[in-house]
Amino acid sequence: MSDAVCKACQGVWPSKDLLIIELGLTKAYLHDDQFFPGWTVVVFRRHATELFQLAPTERFQLMEEVSHVAKTLGAIFQARKINYELLGNQLPHIHWHVIPRLATDPAPLDPVWRVPHEVVSPSADQLRDRIGRIRLGLETASDRPPR
Amino acid sequence: MSDAVCKACQGVWPSKDLLIIELGLTKAYLHDDQFFPGWTVVVFRRHATELFQLAPTERFQLMEEVSHVAKTLGAIFQARKINYELLGNQLPHIHWHVIPRLATDPAPLDPVWRVPHEVVSPSADQLRDRIGRIRLGLETASDRPPR
Repeated sequence: MSDAVCKACQGVWPSKDLLIIELGLTKAYLHDDQFFPGWTVVVFRRHATELFQLAPTERFQLMEEVSHVAKTLGAIFQARKINYELLGNQLPHIHWHVIPRLATDPAPLDPVWRVPHEVVSPSADQLRDRIGRIRLGLETASDRPPR
Repeated sequence: MSDAVCKACQGVWPSKDLLIIELGLTKAYLHDDQFFPGWTVVVFRRHATELFQLAPTERFQLMEEVSHVAKTLGAIFQARKINYELLGNQLPHIHWHVIPRLATDPAPLDPVWRVPHEVVSPSADQLRDRIGRIRLGLETASDRPPR
């Protein structure tokens, strides 16, 4: 099920260049602003806007995939904490922001939205490297959720 | 399992006055700042800090309870969207911010953390009324998750 005016359903967002991996019910993309290194967006494949619109089995699978991404990012970036956010204020289609907060974080006590910064856009080489490392981590985890 | 220096484990936070309901694995409290009406905090009972530290069955039950709270808040406050946030930057103990975003929201496109405002502290009567309405909604929902 897709929505004719939804940028996620229509493939307008996120950029295909940022795709990390296709999981069972979601696709994971690197966030286009990498000021917080490893910030990843986990996008539900079908159109839905609230957790409670999903069947319990879908909700379970979705959260297994979000948890899998979080664990992998935590290990790769040696995160002190992971932030998990499902907002949808601008784009209601379910997408999870999964944000590793590192030891080098400039404002570790604050939500990322409160941290003023210039957008960090990695070079093509840096993107390929970062996406590749996260993909490898997700693919090779022994506790990867079944599809 | 509890943590000796964790404010959630030690019962220091949230204030007991704000308790809405005890669910299976969580307790739900009204957030002390009600600038965004209905903002609720769903606190995991035992000490854990990341979704991936939980057993899949616990993760499932936790998210069923978060979803139940979100659906109930959405109906009571006629929310346009729900925000779900597990951050833990200041208090790592798992607690979900479940925030209904209403038609009257002053900044519907922004995360709540970007909206400057004075803290709104309801009177004792207002608190009792709001907590009571949410509790009743949670208790009487036909699709309340099993404990």
